[in-house]
Amino acid sequence: MLTPEDNRLLTRVGPDTPMGRLFRRFWLPVLLASELPEPDCPPVRVRILCEDLVAFRDSSGRVGLLDEHCPHRRASLFLGRNEEDGIRCVFHGWKFDATGRCVDLPSVENGAALKNRVRIAAYPTREFGGYVWCYMGPPEHQPELPRMEFGLVAPQRRFITKRRQFANWAQAAEGILDPTHFSYLHIPISRNRDAWGKMMYGANFSTTEVDPRLRWVVEDGCPSIHVRPLPNDLGMTVAGKRRADGDDAYWRIIQFLMPSTSLAPGSSEGENYHGQTVVPIDDENAWVFSYTWNPERELTEQERKQLGSGSAVHPALDDQFTPKRNRANDYLIDRELQKTQTYSGIVGIGEQDTAINESQGVIYDRSKEFLVASDAGIARMRKLWLETARKLADGIEPVAPSHPDGYKVRSGNAVCPGSMTLEEVMVRRFGHVHGHLGSMYDGGAQQERAAGVPVA
Amino acid sequence: MLTPEDNRLLTRVGPDTPMGRLFRRFWLPVLLASELPEPDCPPVRVRILCEDLVAFRDSSGRVGLLDEHCPHRRASLFLGRNEEDGIRCVFHGWKFDATGRCVDLPSVENGAALKNRVRIAAYPTREFGGYVWCYMGPPEHQPELPRMEFGLVAPQRRFITKRRQFANWAQAAEGILDPTHFSYLHIPISRNRDAWGKMMYGANFSTTEVDPRLRWVVEDGCPSIHVRPLPNDLGMTVAGKRRADGDDAYWRIIQFLMPSTSLAPGSSEGENYHGQTVVPIDDENAWVFSYTWNPERELTEQERKQLGSGSAVHPALDDQFTPKRNRANDYLIDRELQKTQTYSGIVGIGEQDTAINESQGVIYDRSKEFLVASDAGIARMRKLWLETARKLADGIEPVAPSHPDGYKVRSGNAVCPGSMTLEEVMVRRFGHVHGHLGSMYDGGAQQERAAGVPVA
Amino acid sequence: MLTPEDNRLLTRVGPDTPMGRLFRRFWLPVLLASELPEPDCPPVRVRILCEDLVAFRDSSGRVGLLDEHCPHRRASLFLGRNEEDGIRCVFHGWKFDATGRCVDLPSVENGAALKNRVRIAAYPTREFGGYVWCYMGPPEHQPELPRMEFGLVAPQRRFITKRRQFANWAQAAEGILDPTHFSYLHIPISRNRDAWGKMMYGANFSTTEVDPRLRWVVEDGCPSIHVRPLPNDLGMTVAGKRRADGDDAYWRIIQFLMPSTSLAPGSSEGENYHGQTVVPIDDENAWVFSYTWNPERELTEQERKQLGSGSAVHPALDDQFTPKRNRANDYLIDRELQKTQTYSGIVGIGEQDTAINESQGVIYDRSKEFLVASDAGIARMRKLWLETARKLADGIEPVAPSHPDGYKVRSGNAVCPGSMTLEEVMVRRFGHVHGHLGSMYDGGAQQERAAGVPVA
Repeated sequence: MLTPEDNRLLTRVGPDTPMGRLFRRFWLPVLLASELPEPDCPPVRVRILCEDLVAFRDSSGRVGLLDEHCPHRRASLFLGRNEEDGIRCVFHGWKFDATGRCVDLPSVENGAALKNRVRIAAYPTREFGGYVWCYMGPPEHQPELPRMEFGLVAPQRRFITKRRQFANWAQAAEGILDPTHFSYLHIPISRNRDAWGKMMYGANFSTTEVDPRLRWVVEDGCPSIHVRPLPNDLGMTVAGKRRADGDDAYWRIIQFLMPSTSLAPGSSEGENYHGQTVVPIDDENAWVFSYTWNPERELTEQERKQLGSGSAVHPALDDQFTPKRNRANDYLIDRELQKTQTYSGIVGIGEQDTAINESQGVIYDRSKEFLVASDAGIARMRKLWLETARKLADGIEPVAPSHPDGYKVRSGNAVCPGSMTLEEVMVRRFGHVHGHLGSMYDGGAQQERAAGVPVA
Repeated sequence: MLTPEDNRLLTRVGPDTPMGRLFRRFWLPVLLASELPEPDCPPVRVRILCEDLVAFRDSSGRVGLLDEHCPHRRASLFLGRNEEDGIRCVFHGWKFDATGRCVDLPSVENGAALKNRVRIAAYPTREFGGYVWCYMGPPEHQPELPRMEFGLVAPQRRFITKRRQFANWAQAAEGILDPTHFSYLHIPISRNRDAWGKMMYGANFSTTEVDPRLRWVVEDGCPSIHVRPLPNDLGMTVAGKRRADGDDAYWRIIQFLMPSTSLAPGSSEGENYHGQTVVPIDDENAWVFSYTWNPERELTEQERKQLGSGSAVHPALDDQFTPKRNRANDYLIDRELQKTQTYSGIVGIGEQDTAINESQGVIYDRSKEFLVASDAGIARMRKLWLETARKLADGIEPVAPSHPDGYKVRSGNAVCPGSMTLEEVMVRRFGHVHGHLGSMYDGGAQQERAAGVPVA
Repeated sequence: MLTPEDNRLLTRVGPDTPMGRLFRRFWLPVLLASELPEPDCPPVRVRILCEDLVAFRDSSGRVGLLDEHCPHRRASLFLGRNEEDGIRCVFHGWKFDATGRCVDLPSVENGAALKNRVRIAAYPTREFGGYVWCYMGPPEHQPELPRMEFGLVAPQRRFITKRRQFANWAQAAEGILDPTHFSYLHIPISRNRDAWGKMMYGANFSTTEVDPRLRWVVEDGCPSIHVRPLPNDLGMTVAGKRRADGDDAYWRIIQFLMPSTSLAPGSSEGENYHGQTVVPIDDENAWVFSYTWNPERELTEQERKQLGSGSAVHPALDDQFTPKRNRANDYLIDRELQKTQTYSGIVGIGEQDTAINESQGVIYDRSKEFLVASDAGIARMRKLWLETARKLADGIEPVAPSHPDGYKVRSGNAVCPGSMTLEEVMVRRFGHVHGHLGSMYDGGAQQERAAGVPVA
């Protein structure tokens, strides 16, 4: 439970809010790099943290992210002409480059002199992991990009999406760091193989037997919750421990990274990994950037096809990045399926999460909730969010942004003797108590540079 | 005319408003029982008096009406799984029975103990007359169900609907207790038989001559209005007296019953009777529950078909309970029909009423109206609403709810010598000065119990 | 730049606002006369200056413009029956004539006496130039109709439209009095003949060579701006002077007339003239009434067809008077066209203006703009608007309305030796320093009177 004041503090992200300022200390993904497929392609509207922006890729391949409105008479630069290393307002021909500098004022008598006095708000951008990222905070505090593994692997080894969620960002973020709900929201009610398959793997399901990990999730619906802070206020490890076969325990370990990233707990070594970063569009809408990657091999065409049509954390999407199963159609909930096969009656893990989070209300009222022990991860995370935001409001900078290498961690599951502690499990599973990947990727060779497009 | 303050008091119905509190002292119909057709069927969203609720029928057939949101983390129970005498939140498996008791907490370590401390808001429900009714007030003031005749007859003798009105509740309620408008809004401009038929009886019209009652309504557009209070502040009888043939008068007698029921004035003895109960969804929307019944015989298939496709007080509806002729399509007003045949150009009595009431504004501004003598019923009713709501705000309970038998009255028309008073007419027409049915139905045999479904 | 306070003053037009009061001192076009095609035709909803009205043409052809709501119980007269020199509310039969007088109260006992005490708000109307105009101010200040040339010519010599703009009125008004933007928003990026043609003249373009005037607009993107007030605070002449061939200058001269009319600068003598009047629907929507006329000859069928399908100031419209290329479909912006042929990628002059004006925001925030020398006309006009509105708020009536003959001016272009002043150019081009037409049209023969319809 939060007081109405704390709930307000947590959920509001405009430029003049404490949480909005905190988000502005981090690099945030804001669109798919493929939305700007080539130099001088059409500009794209971007709304992030209650600010209306326009993104364009200039003739050199750099991505500019500017105030949507021309400073002159505030015509939208979305209508602008992307030409020769700048975007030109079509109202009076004012032109700006990707850094926000005015480079042409053809309609003004003393334009050549005046243009040095004209600026448009511009945010630095980077391309990483197939997304365009931006930093919207004060230049003197601009950090390095967080070194998340999905961005460090070669493009062939990852699959990425973004989707719109019609609710405040914190609902999606909290939903992901909750190990318990997997035993209800995401599971079948019977052990019927087809039900499991349809639900967990989509229509193409064809394995011949049920994964014991899913069985353990079904059989133990009351995992114990273990929370360990990551160093440098980077976030926390949140793990659910369930009974497995014999004396073993089945651990599902989430890594939560400031401000709003979670790495999913379901993967064994060698399998695909999944993660999500929630970015507020405004107080009532959010983007969920979801990524699947395999550190050891390229994803197959079959895997890409399956993920692209809705599987794992990726819902089936329309061309506006809205889930096809959405609030407007009640997520196509199938009451017969719900009665006979699955808890939710909704097809798709991502869709199930979205349905629940949106159903909490456009801005979830945390003063009316009733938290229990299994919500320990959520409670701890809220504390970190609120404390860090309050400190920043008092002039104390957050520590996490300046530790980009700390983001190079892994999450996943583990089956271990029931007597082992989370720390022991982490070391056994990941070789590091915090799941850190050490010097892996430090060669940097795999860092993406899209064809012909330098990392700006 | 009301002051802006009184208008506000009359129209606002949230939990903390005087009128909202008054509504919460009465049993209110909230949905068709057929929307919950069988035990363990899908739950249904219900918004009443600005509160978001979810209704479900449990394995025993009982209807539960709960806060829409799970008390834990406020996921919607509309997404919930209706199973074995309770509804289970699919987020973490918390389960509630129809009385709001938490009956399972599988995801919480000390769930068996904790569940006694967890409750969800629940309102008592009843099934009566084919509707589900609820009581949303303090338990210590819970009255008996009002003994309205349409609910006391056998199901075969009634036909019921509900429809959404896109305006404040009081507009619909006031519209019905106005005897004068029938001479304009609902009538043809000529005595052309087909026009009358099409308008009054729908497409299937096939009588061979025009009813003299309709002729009197057309010929005397200025009835005198007679208002008599019902005992125990139950409401009032509002009658319009028109010239009939010779020295006779044609009376049309409405019974208005607190808080928002009206029984229609058009029926002669032996004919079908009609009534409506308006229930606020919130300040800007309302349900109109409409019922037709015949105390003496079953309705025929032909009658059901005609009523179901839009006739008398029942508009033609889509599957969301919205009239097919609605605000968005200007009620399909036919200007040629209006020029040549009927006043309104809109087909359907219910549609005509809806069009007018919605056209008064989403919340009708009573500070800008100009009432005349023919609005005597409305003026008196407002006085009763406001006084009773104000008294309740001062701690004085309303009297009407504790007189459920007082609702067992009839309305209808009468042709009597013009010299008779309303009291004399009531006694002659109904055998009782207030139209009360006496001990009729006190055997109770006809009270509905849906197959296998006890009255909870 | 305006302060937030001044911006608010400029943009708000409700009955109790300074700018709303100023608009109410002028005759304003409110609908096409053809929307009320014949006596006793269906009424039409009209929302102007935040007021909801209903217009109808009575049996004598007079246009009534009344409060939308019947004074009795505020049913909408849009649902009313237009019959025998009045509109009858279909709720209780109250009937009003075009002047707002109650002419029948059939449902009220002492109706014949009472009806003299009942009035509905009614505004005087005129038909002029194919539009219905109304005056919404105090009767004692009612002026004569402005004698605009498009209304003085015979109907065969003009073409008129109206279109809805989804933004505050002042954006459209300011957009038109800006001579510079023509060199960007409305021009092709190359001299390719087909591109010019498609853009300037629509699909039917078939001239064989490019007009040198368009070449000059392209070649000189930085005109000098010359502003001269019109007498009697009627408005101002705003002219852009560009280099033409040799020592010549190419002048484009706009006439701006209070409160919101502009005559377009593109026409040479003998060509068609164009003008626009912006009328606020409310603070967030406006009608743009656009007119094309030729003082010397009738428009051809081909011209009417071309204008009707979208050409010059007239966008292609749907049957709700909304541009087919609109905000909801991003004006069908064609990025390939924008890249290769025109600045905007949007087809149509009117559409280009609409796109830009709507992109400034629903209510453009003038506290965030950065005006330059080329915005001189806009800055001066704002000053006139604000000063006149403030004076009126202080009880000083505006001067312009009582000078209807002052509206009889022309705008247009001129090619003159570069050394001539605007005053000299005006005299040479129009025979008058303010472009006034002198005694032309004072015979009055051409003033429109629609067949059988007196000017009310």
